[in-house]
Formats: sequence, C-alpha cells, structure tokens
Amino acid sequence: MKPQGKTRSIFPRVEEFVRRRRLLPEGSSVLLAVSGGQDSVGMLTILRELAPKLKLRLSVAHVNHLLRGAESDSDETFVSELAASAGLPFFVERVDPAALSAREKRSVEDAARELRYEALERMRVQARSDLIATAHTADDNAETVLFNLARGSGVRGLAGIPVKRGNIVRPLRCLGREEVARFLAERGVQHRDDSSNISLNATRNFIRLEIIPRIRDGVNDECVRNIDRASRMLAELGDFLEAYTACETEHVSRVEGGDLFLDISGLKRYLIFIRREIIRSAVRSWSRKSLAFEQVEEILGIADSDNGTSLALPGRLKVWKEKSSLVFTSSSRAPFSRQIEIGHLYEFPEFSFSSEICRRNEVRFIPDPSVEFVDEEKLAPPLVLRSWSSQDSFQPLGLGSMKRVGAFLADKGVPRRERDSVLVLESDGKIVWLCGHRLDARYSLSEQATRVAKLVWRRR
Amino acid sequence: MKPQGKTRSIFPRVEEFVRRRRLLPEGSSVLLAVSGGQDSVGMLTILRELAPKLKLRLSVAHVNHLLRGAESDSDETFVSELAASAGLPFFVERVDPAALSAREKRSVEDAARELRYEALERMRVQARSDLIATAHTADDNAETVLFNLARGSGVRGLAGIPVKRGNIVRPLRCLGREEVARFLAERGVQHRDDSSNISLNATRNFIRLEIIPRIRDGVNDECVRNIDRASRMLAELGDFLEAYTACETEHVSRVEGGDLFLDISGLKRYLIFIRREIIRSAVRSWSRKSLAFEQVEEILGIADSDNGTSLALPGRLKVWKEKSSLVFTSSSRAPFSRQIEIGHLYEFPEFSFSSEICRRNEVRFIPDPSVEFVDEEKLAPPLVLRSWSSQDSFQPLGLGSMKRVGAFLADKGVPRRERDSVLVLESDGKIVWLCGHRLDARYSLSEQATRVAKLVWRRR
Repeated sequence: MKPQGKTRSIFPRVEEFVRRRRLLPEGSSVLLAVSGGQDSVGMLTILRELAPKLKLRLSVAHVNHLLRGAESDSDETFVSELAASAGLPFFVERVDPAALSAREKRSVEDAARELRYEALERMRVQARSDLIATAHTADDNAETVLFNLARGSGVRGLAGIPVKRGNIVRPLRCLGREEVARFLAERGVQHRDDSSNISLNATRNFIRLEIIPRIRDGVNDECVRNIDRASRMLAELGDFLEAYTACETEHVSRVEGGDLFLDISGLKRYLIFIRREIIRSAVRSWSRKSLAFEQVEEILGIADSDNGTSLALPGRLKVWKEKSSLVFTSSSRAPFSRQIEIGHLYEFPEFSFSSEICRRNEVRFIPDPSVEFVDEEKLAPPLVLRSWSSQDSFQPLGLGSMKRVGAFLADKGVPRRERDSVLVLESDGKIVWLCGHRLDARYSLSEQATRVAKLVWRRR
Repeated sequence: MKPQGKTRSIFPRVEEFVRRRRLLPEGSSVLLAVSGGQDSVGMLTILRELAPKLKLRLSVAHVNHLLRGAESDSDETFVSELAASAGLPFFVERVDPAALSAREKRSVEDAARELRYEALERMRVQARSDLIATAHTADDNAETVLFNLARGSGVRGLAGIPVKRGNIVRPLRCLGREEVARFLAERGVQHRDDSSNISLNATRNFIRLEIIPRIRDGVNDECVRNIDRASRMLAELGDFLEAYTACETEHVSRVEGGDLFLDISGLKRYLIFIRREIIRSAVRSWSRKSLAFEQVEEILGIADSDNGTSLALPGRLKVWKEKSSLVFTSSSRAPFSRQIEIGHLYEFPEFSFSSEICRRNEVRFIPDPSVEFVDEEKLAPPLVLRSWSSQDSFQPLGLGSMKRVGAFLADKGVPRRERDSVLVLESDGKIVWLCGHRLDARYSLSEQATRVAKLVWRRR
C-alpha cells in the first residue's frame, strides 16, 4: 500500500536530514517546542521514535499565549498530557502578547513571536537542553519564500526559514505539511486544531490557503518541494557570500579615528552585486547598523559623484566622498554646549578648556593653535563653548570679512570627519574663537587692550 | 492629475533604464519585434519618441505565426500600417509552428518561440540592425520568476528574463504591464488584443491571470516590482558567480588526455554552493554539456565514496573517483568493431593494426606489449578487432583460468580513462588478444605450432 510506504519513509528521511545537516548531534539534549498543533505533534512523535537511534534526550515545552481563553488552556493540558504519556519532561510558560502588542503598538503575531522565543530560551536553560526544535515544515518555508519575494527581499529573505540558527533547529523542514498530516492520521495520533496558526498573520494565512494550493494545482504539483530546494540553495549561497564578502571587505575598507573608509577604486574592481554586499557588510560590522537596498544604491551614487557630496543615513550615520574614498562617520555624540567662566578649567572626555586673566606684558605669542589671547574687556556674558552649527559665521583674523564656519573649515582643508568635532567659543552670541583654528578679528588684542584673557583648548 | 504624471514619467524611466544598462547605445540600429499587442505597440510608441534623443535608428519586424487564420493576417496588416504611419522600415516573416510542433512532437508555444527568434534574427540581418528589441515587461518577468520558482530552478532561473542577451534587449522591463496599458489608453493608441499571448502556454497564462493578481491583492500590491527587483539582484549575483566560478575552477581542474580531472581536496575547500558551481562549470566548459542539480549531487556523493566508484552521466559522460580526483571521460566515440584479415595493415585515427604470417624460427620475442605472436592455425574466421565489452571474459596467459576483461584491466592497474579505449582481437567469438595488454592462453604458440601470426597493434 502506497500511503503506508510513504509513512515508513518519513523516519529515514528525517534521520538523514538531521544527520547531513548536523542538526541534532548525537548525545544532545533537545527541547521540543510543541503547540499541540499538527506539525509539532508530528515532530514530537517522529523524534521520540528516532531518539534512541540518534542518541537524543528530549524534553517538551509549551508556550501558552493566553489569546484564546479556555481553548489556550486546553492546548496546554493537551500538550502536558502528551509529554506525560511519552514519558518526557514538560515545561510551560504563559506569556501575554496582547498586552505587549497594545503597549508597544505592534501586531499581536509579532509580539507573540518575540515572547514565544524568549520563553523557549528560558525553558531551554531550565531543561538543561542544548537545542530548541521547532516544527516548521517545507510548506512553512515555501510560504515564507513567497511572502518575502512578494514584499521585496534579498538573497537572505529568499533563503526562507533557516534550518539552523543559533540553538534553534528545524528538523521537520524536510517534510511537507501533507505528509505530516497523513503520518498522524495513519497512526491515529490526535492533535489540536489551529493551535499552530497562532503565529500566522492574515497575509501568511492567505498565502497558505489561497496562493500555494493554486500554484500546486495550476503550475507544478511539486511546487513546495521545489521552492524549498531553491531556498536551500540560496541559503548555501548566502553562506558563501557572507564568507566571501567578509574577506574582500578587508581589502577595501579600514577604520581610522572611528570613521570607516572604503576605497572607491578598490570597490569598483568588484561586480555590482559584490560592491553592494561589501558596502553593506563594512557598514554593518563598523556601526552594527543594516542598510536598506535603496541606501546602498544612493551610496553607490555618491561614489560616482563629485568630491565632497554627502548623504545622511539613518542612525546618525553620514557618508561622503573624500578624494578616493567613501567616508562614513557616526555623529552619535550629541552637539556639545556648555556655559563657562573665565579663570576655570573644564575637562571633558575629548578635550579640556581653560582660561586665565593676564597682563599685557605677560603675553607671549607662541605658534600653538591651542592657545589664543583675546581682549578680555570685549567679552560679554554668557560665554558659551559649543559645537559649531551650519548657521555660524565669524570674522576670521586676517580675512577682513565675515565667513561661514563651514566654508572656512572646508577652505582650510580640515578633513570632513574632523569638522564635526570643532568647537566655537561664543560671547553674547558672537563667535570669539574657532577653537584650535582661528581667532575672530573682533576680539583680537588691540594696542589699547590692558586686560588679556589667555584661552587654552586642548584635545585629550 | 496623477495618471498624467505617471504617463510623463514613462519616458525618463525608460531612458534612464536603457542608458544605465547600456541596452541601446547611441547610434545603434534597433529592430523592434512588434506583434501588434499592447506591450509591443507600447514599445514602438515609446522608443519612437525617445529615438532622436537616444540617437537610434528603428525598424519594425513582425512574425506572422499563421496560427489564427484571418486574425493572424489582420495582425500583420495592423503592424505594417503602424510602421508605415510611423515612417519606419517594415519587415515581416511567416512561420509555421504548427507544422514544426507536429513534426517534432513539441508544444506549439515552444516551436513558435524558436521559429520567432530565428525569423527575427534573419530580419535583423536584412534590416542591417544591431539589436532586436522585444517588449517584455516587469510583469512578464515576475511571471517567469514565479514559474521557475514553482517548477524548480537555480539562481539563473530565478533571475528571470535577461534584460540583455546576445543581441536581444528588453527596454520595457522597467515598466509594469498596467503602466503600458494606461499609457496607450491616454494617448488613444490602438493595439490588437491577445496577439502578444501567442507565446504563452496555459501554465504561464494561469500565473498571469490567477496567481499574480491574487498575490497583488492579498500579499503586496507592489509584488511585480518587488519580484522584478529581486530577479535583477539575482541576475547580477549570477554574473558574479559565473566570473568567480570560472576563476576558481581553474585552480582545481585540469584536462589531460581528453579527460577532465577535478581535485577533490581542492574542491572541498569551497563551501557547498561553490563546490556545485565549480563541478557544473568545469563539466560545461569541458564537454559543453549541462548537468542537472541531481547529477551534481550524485557527483558530490562519489567524491565522498570509495576509490573507483563510478557514475554514468547523460550524453555518454562518465565520472569516477580515482585516488584524489574526480575523473570525467566522454565515451563519445562509438564502440569500435571491424572485421580484419591476416596480412593487411589497418590504420585508424587512434591506432593501427597489422598482421603477417611468419615461420616459427623467425619469431623473436621482444618486450613490446604492442607485438604478439599466435598460433595461426587456431584462428578461425571471422577475425574481429573491437572494443571490449563488460560481458567479455578471456584466459589471460599465465593465469590458468578465465577472467573478465574489466576485472583484468582493473587488477592490472590500467587507469580507468584508458580502459574504455582498449581493443580485443576476436576469433570466431573467442578473445585472442587483449591488444597491448595480454595474450589469451588458448592462442599462444605451442611446441607444435608451425604457422605463426605476428600481430602488431600500435597507438598512434
């Protein structure tokens, strides 16, 4: 009989799958996430039978999402009895995704997923298990691939649900949902209806119920298996790309003074796909931030544009072209601003500022841009030491006219990554000193000056 | 007004698309494949307007598939009038896919596609055009991607319809079908219905009419654009993989004596995805034959198995493990078989065979395996020189018992790639000599022998 034949083939297939992928190493202890639905009951039944052969120690965990009242509690009872009859340790946690969803204005499904995996990890520790096994099938994977394809996704998204990620494994990804259903029906194993769909939003359910069956009937009846196989190849391709990109990224990137430099001509030696991957990978490992596809496209545009063209990226990142490099800075420090008084020493993580009154004849001009002398009588409160802003103008000593601070720094050739950290000393709203760079002519010592303020700004 | 805005944006979008991808270089001459359907009429309308700016010379080609009688002829008339009113040269060819399909037992759509592209290429030469432009849209591409995903496909299949392949370009791949329809409607441009669907089989039409609209409504209304973008990335990824694989393949493969050798330990240094790509690429460039996914998997299995394990591949290819290599041979030469007579010289591309009668006292045994002496009186017609077969056994001189030819060659350590080309000399169905290797004991010279045949087999 054919159905029987199929059922018998389930065990060797799962066994080969977990062995080849090294999902469940011999001797490991595995916590099975069991909702009580068809797939997870199938997983429990199959792995329990394979456990002696694979030398596994099993435990069962159930997360009660409290979303369907008495029904949720019946699910919990059902799974606890299932574990008891299988002679396996049972763990349960109750979580409240409805509350989290309301509090953080997220979808219930999304909140449920986060709370579920957190709870499973706690129970894994409690059960002293190495791994958590979830019951995702090839169908779940095909649905994910179609979902990601339709909503726009890169190679990783089309790779579907990972067979193994961290300590989470999916030993049932080699089986179709129908096969699991038939297996349970033949064995007369009971399961709860619908419980497993708690994690599905309306869109995912639509793909499951409306799209996949139509593709199966009208395009290819092996479509789930074929999509699953394509996603497996893309996952393996993703592994390769990650390793390759990490290696190549080293050749064209460096971090200096906290900024990320990408060599443009080096970058252009790669084909476009890898260029994008390198940019994304370099920025991710430097800033721990992920760039969207469009942002990478814009960055590529900057590499082709004029020197100095810049782009603000989310997360307070900024990128511009400087000579032969793309330079990324993170302006994560908030703008600095601090009221000061003459005669005090101010120390900050990145610089110190001090001032003192001295007499005219004590002035010794020295070729140190960190030190300046100003006419103290021209200063008016409040004196403020602050980051310069793009609105700032001043009258640089020796120039004879007003000039924007930004333009002054650019003309002087101050590297853009250093410009952000430049400070101004302000007196009653007017700029006295572009610290470390240039005095304002309006405050310079005249012949008549008697009281002199010595200003010292030092980078630490 | 929004619709108008969209229409206006069509021209800059197509312009940017063809410029960025270098689809239609300035000064080139382009033959537009126009069926008369919406998409191709849209392409004609758009490119005619862009032609002066892009410096293009346009011609129009129509392929009449003769599949719908008078309707087909009306399409032809419609397109010829369209070309005339646009002031463009017009070319037409009639092809008969129905006949080809019946003759070669292929689908009509498949036959139509082949004949259409052949006809277009002839008309391109006639029109002195550089390129052929077809009117595939982003929708056509999304349909292809879904089709290939469902039926099982690698990275190349998921990359969809190439924007450029050979001298065929698809300048409308940046537009959705709806946009083209709206554009034509707003301009009041007429087109023929249904004509463009001649190339679609039932499955493709099903995806177009049943699957895509459902995904658009129920999953993501930008799905066509998103799938198109994913396929573009995969196409770029495919370009990279091809270049990368070709380069790496050189490190682990060599062709020697017509056989392909892949170094197994070298191969294993790559991640699984690249291992497969290298095998596929090496075999393709060596034999011009493409391996299916399952065949590559089996070859990987051989690399992990015992020395000598072999596998027959389609197209008369064969692969086995020999020491640290995978060895591929092509037994494309048909089995050799030729009746011979004593006293003649036979010359073939790869070897020569000659024989002569000599007297007993003329025999000089020499240590040359290409020369043997046999008792001529034991020979019986027909004498046949032929490739050995797996059914052959003989009685190797010095062994004292019958032995299979295959086993003898293996025991003697003859490299597998040389075994295929070994010949036997057969006398009335019995093996006389395994040429160049061993005489059969039944034909060796006895004390009584008076007539001796000297046999000479030489590799050329």
